[in-house]
Amino acid sequence: MASTDAAPRPPAPSAGDDAPRTPPPLVADPAALRAFLDGPYASVRDDVRARLVDHAPILDERVDLPRAELRRRVRDLVVEIGRQGQAVHGFPTAYGGGGDIGASVASFETLAYGDLSVLVKSGVQFGLFGGAVLQLGTARHHDTYLPDILSGRLLGCFAMTETGHGSNVQAIGTTARYDPGTDELVVTTPDDSARKDYIGNAAEDGELAVVFAQLEVAGEQHGVHAVLVPIRSAGEVLPGVRIEDCGAKLGLEGVDNGRIWFDGVRVPRANLLDRFASIEDDGAYRSSIENPDRRFFTMLGTLVQGRVSIGGAAVGASKVALEIAIRYGLRRRQFESATEGEETLLLDYGMHQRRLLPLLARTYALSCAQEEVARQLHEVFSADTPEADDRARRALESRAAGTKALATWHATRTIQECREACGGAGYLAANRFAALKADTDVFATFEGDNHVLLQLVAKGLLTDYSSEFEDLDQFGMVRFVTGLAVETVIERTAAHQLLERIRDVLPGGRDGWDQEAGLLDPDYQLAMLRFREEHQLAGVARRLKAGVDAGRPTGEVFSRVQDHVIAAARSHVERLVLEAFVERVRALPESPARDVLTALSDLYALTTIEADRGWFLEHGRLSAPRSKAITREVSEVLRRLRPVAGELVEAFGIPAEVLGARDLVG
Amino acid sequence: MASTDAAPRPPAPSAGDDAPRTPPPLVADPAALRAFLDGPYASVRDDVRARLVDHAPILDERVDLPRAELRRRVRDLVVEIGRQGQAVHGFPTAYGGGGDIGASVASFETLAYGDLSVLVKSGVQFGLFGGAVLQLGTARHHDTYLPDILSGRLLGCFAMTETGHGSNVQAIGTTARYDPGTDELVVTTPDDSARKDYIGNAAEDGELAVVFAQLEVAGEQHGVHAVLVPIRSAGEVLPGVRIEDCGAKLGLEGVDNGRIWFDGVRVPRANLLDRFASIEDDGAYRSSIENPDRRFFTMLGTLVQGRVSIGGAAVGASKVALEIAIRYGLRRRQFESATEGEETLLLDYGMHQRRLLPLLARTYALSCAQEEVARQLHEVFSADTPEADDRARRALESRAAGTKALATWHATRTIQECREACGGAGYLAANRFAALKADTDVFATFEGDNHVLLQLVAKGLLTDYSSEFEDLDQFGMVRFVTGLAVETVIERTAAHQLLERIRDVLPGGRDGWDQEAGLLDPDYQLAMLRFREEHQLAGVARRLKAGVDAGRPTGEVFSRVQDHVIAAARSHVERLVLEAFVERVRALPESPARDVLTALSDLYALTTIEADRGWFLEHGRLSAPRSKAITREVSEVLRRLRPVAGELVEAFGIPAEVLGARDLVG
Repeated sequence: MASTDAAPRPPAPSAGDDAPRTPPPLVADPAALRAFLDGPYASVRDDVRARLVDHAPILDERVDLPRAELRRRVRDLVVEIGRQGQAVHGFPTAYGGGGDIGASVASFETLAYGDLSVLVKSGVQFGLFGGAVLQLGTARHHDTYLPDILSGRLLGCFAMTETGHGSNVQAIGTTARYDPGTDELVVTTPDDSARKDYIGNAAEDGELAVVFAQLEVAGEQHGVHAVLVPIRSAGEVLPGVRIEDCGAKLGLEGVDNGRIWFDGVRVPRANLLDRFASIEDDGAYRSSIENPDRRFFTMLGTLVQGRVSIGGAAVGASKVALEIAIRYGLRRRQFESATEGEETLLLDYGMHQRRLLPLLARTYALSCAQEEVARQLHEVFSADTPEADDRARRALESRAAGTKALATWHATRTIQECREACGGAGYLAANRFAALKADTDVFATFEGDNHVLLQLVAKGLLTDYSSEFEDLDQFGMVRFVTGLAVETVIERTAAHQLLERIRDVLPGGRDGWDQEAGLLDPDYQLAMLRFREEHQLAGVARRLKAGVDAGRPTGEVFSRVQDHVIAAARSHVERLVLEAFVERVRALPESPARDVLTALSDLYALTTIEADRGWFLEHGRLSAPRSKAITREVSEVLRRLRPVAGELVEAFGIPAEVLGARDLVG
Repeated sequence: MASTDAAPRPPAPSAGDDAPRTPPPLVADPAALRAFLDGPYASVRDDVRARLVDHAPILDERVDLPRAELRRRVRDLVVEIGRQGQAVHGFPTAYGGGGDIGASVASFETLAYGDLSVLVKSGVQFGLFGGAVLQLGTARHHDTYLPDILSGRLLGCFAMTETGHGSNVQAIGTTARYDPGTDELVVTTPDDSARKDYIGNAAEDGELAVVFAQLEVAGEQHGVHAVLVPIRSAGEVLPGVRIEDCGAKLGLEGVDNGRIWFDGVRVPRANLLDRFASIEDDGAYRSSIENPDRRFFTMLGTLVQGRVSIGGAAVGASKVALEIAIRYGLRRRQFESATEGEETLLLDYGMHQRRLLPLLARTYALSCAQEEVARQLHEVFSADTPEADDRARRALESRAAGTKALATWHATRTIQECREACGGAGYLAANRFAALKADTDVFATFEGDNHVLLQLVAKGLLTDYSSEFEDLDQFGMVRFVTGLAVETVIERTAAHQLLERIRDVLPGGRDGWDQEAGLLDPDYQLAMLRFREEHQLAGVARRLKAGVDAGRPTGEVFSRVQDHVIAAARSHVERLVLEAFVERVRALPESPARDVLTALSDLYALTTIEADRGWFLEHGRLSAPRSKAITREVSEVLRRLRPVAGELVEAFGIPAEVLGARDLVG
């Protein structure tokens, strides 16, 4: 039962040698835990907390505001965020920014404690719209637009998704044809399936749009490029542009999503965002990246911050739900115990602990994973030569995709469980869950559908970031089967190699490691997750090869292996998440907070293994008795953590005014 | 691979003896499948379908109606349902009813295809309010109130839940004291935690309330009884009554939920609903049921139809979501296959089949389970002597509780998965998911919190409906540990008996049955689920006994075993669901529809075993190779069912006007 990690716990205070070793009770210091969660940007987060308190009234008011008024309130808040210079952390100092991408992500994550329409609309304005101008444009675009964008004077859209293509955006239908006669680009929506759809800021407020379109120069197609197209002036939609309101949505009602059609709208050639490709004065198309697929994915890759941000927002929303549900569970009593004379606290029920505390542990784990992906984002994007280290970029993109998928699904599941754990009171809009549930629901879809993102992760693993990258369709997962260097993959993951790789990661490289190691040994936990990931990946490669060798159509081969692909990617990301958590905890000095976090890390690791114990049993990595022992150990850890549950949510640092739900939390 | 059930399938048409046996493609006749799902009340369901088409405009209009107007629209529709005599199926013919409880449930289930505020408000009015007057009152109450209730002229409330007590309703705080001086009952809310809360029809429309209160007669407490209390007249709240609007909710915004306080409100003695207990003319309390716990649970038991109805509604809502998502998956293409030249249909992706078709199979299974519980409800409540067969009543109550829990969780999960499977379009309110998600969310909570209901199921199993029943607190699950005749339970589920019971249900009683039987043999599938249930139940009993024997506080004993309790109950209900499905399919004549339903039943059974394969592996009921074989078999069944997916949802018989979501289904 004792942990065997680097800094061993002190021996239990009581007991002779024969007595079972009972670890001492955990003692939680919310300030220390908060410092752990807040990480290097604690002061940035505190600034956002203070501003959220100022804006807290919207959380109550939105409950009864009609959509039109809510949109206005949200727009005013976003403009205010711009005017106060709060949205500039990640932009270059030359444009009044802070030049600190890590700060920008920390700020966004913390903003997710508040109203999520404000979060998403500011994400559209400063992250997607401003980010596209910054990343895809060049100095003249920066000089012309960034000051107004960052200050909230110029609201705009990121017009990529079309009705017909949301996931496979490389196949969008909007066209931008260069007309050398007038030196203009002509932007056209060829049919309804190519209308831009679900575009934030489009229905009411956006004046300028970054429009993604198939660029045609001198009769030649060059793939998807971004063009700045004015869509509104002084509140009036411009000629040639048609806009329709997407109307009521499941959530995020404060964001004005809309559809846009372009009917031969002409803009100057200078409106092409030309960092990666340009039309020269002589009318010739020129790009530093030869391969059109690679060019497209390089452009997309610069926008990865959006995914990192949404993952962080999902973790933030999960924290709000968990704090409400756990504090309710620490106040609410129901059903009398025969021996105890008063009704029992909800959180003293074993089932209630089982429902909530593993989600809490996973939230802490995902917080650490978010911090790691944000750190990598900061590193890659702060480098002087962004095209330089392709490998680091692709590792970042894969990690961002995977973390976003797991974090957003986690939010959906956590908010649902917390709502149910608060009973009828949880159903009242005043108690936050209505908004949390509705607003986060689309997180699984936007910034990349989660299943598509996990396929992207899997493909990266299969190709091992090989030089085949340029030939692969990064998003389309059917085509990749033929594009894939199957032989290479098979070689890499052949059975004996697999075993060697696994042995490398084992505690001490022993045989039988997985039957002897302590369940609370993080090296054991990590080795289990690494084994699963490698084994599943090898299985995918083997199945792909078998299907291709048998001459089956690639579509069918892919379809049959797709659930294995998703499973392998998920396993990979769960391993990354555990690694991030374990490494952060290991880096702490010995302290009561470290003991609490170690228990939480154990809980995340063991419930993750337990949830897939069928797989580990099938593959000989768990015996039946050991599998049952894991479940018993989980129960033990839950009981150890129960007394510090309140401090664990207090550590989120959600101001009371922002948390709301006063009926529930008291 | 061939089924071994009673009527064997014809041999595959192709192939010599050596070739693998490929079952013939499935052929689905939507009319035959619909007849299967509609069951004996097809014409009742068709009537409701026709009415839903008439009322379909509300489904679009509600998207943009402010809450106040939506409430009015919904109220008008409920009153119209009453005026047209549509709500009377289950009431006695003497009051203009149809005297057919089964028809009443079938009608309610089908109504769930439409707007769920209309469904829930009519459930409050006719089911809860009208049902309480019918079941708890006597002739004078029936004569006085039922005609006006059924015709929608008198709207009312079912005021049981209090802020402080939703699950443990036996501990509510509202009091009703008999005053012999004036021959009145005095109804009082002693404190805020005893205010009635979340009461449907309370905020605006209800004029009369069935109020549950602790009855005191001549200084003696008699437990919870129901009293009719007028709360409004001509739209004005009556003196002594205070009502507060619960305000905005997560969903069901067309229902006017409210809170009610009573400040010594006096009503005549005749307002006591006195079927099970009365105050005589001499002021003495009298009841045919001596034991106060038993009396309370007998009263509650008469209201079981509400639970059956919500379970049915959850299945109905799941059908709407599945039809939208599957039809979208049959139209929407995304990502091009290298060999196929056009983008691939979503439902041709293996993962998409994995996401949706098992939920479809479970929906069919739950439909059959619903029909069975409705049949038992009809039988028990149509008997002349309702108090007679206690055993049948308790079996019904347990089945209703368990089916409600599983069906409502299934709805939450299914609607979520379907929303995600429809991408961004699924997030638009016009496409139904917003309403489906929000409105069904509380199904897991009202009419009994699902976890509490599963505990109720488990307790019934543990006591084997023994004569100890009267001494047990049917809802409080902490207290039950001491109340339980542990010895009896242990005896009943002792290991050797367990094995005998299992052997009885095996195909042929063979040893090694579970390693040899065909995976598609329903007897094998059922035996697996029966084994799990019995084993888990025995485990719970053993743990309880060990804890009690060790002298631990009962609260702690229960807390530690609670997740096993829930698991055992869930296993029990999953077995009942499979039994219901298998039996319905077996009763069909040989036909293409029977083959399709057999495949669906296989899919439900195998995915249920697969989802818990960790448990089966731990307990020696699956070997690793066999566990993997189940996953392969699931994939096979998915591929067989894929071509008939459209027909399987067409069979729900949801009129196009009611289905809506035209963007998605085309």
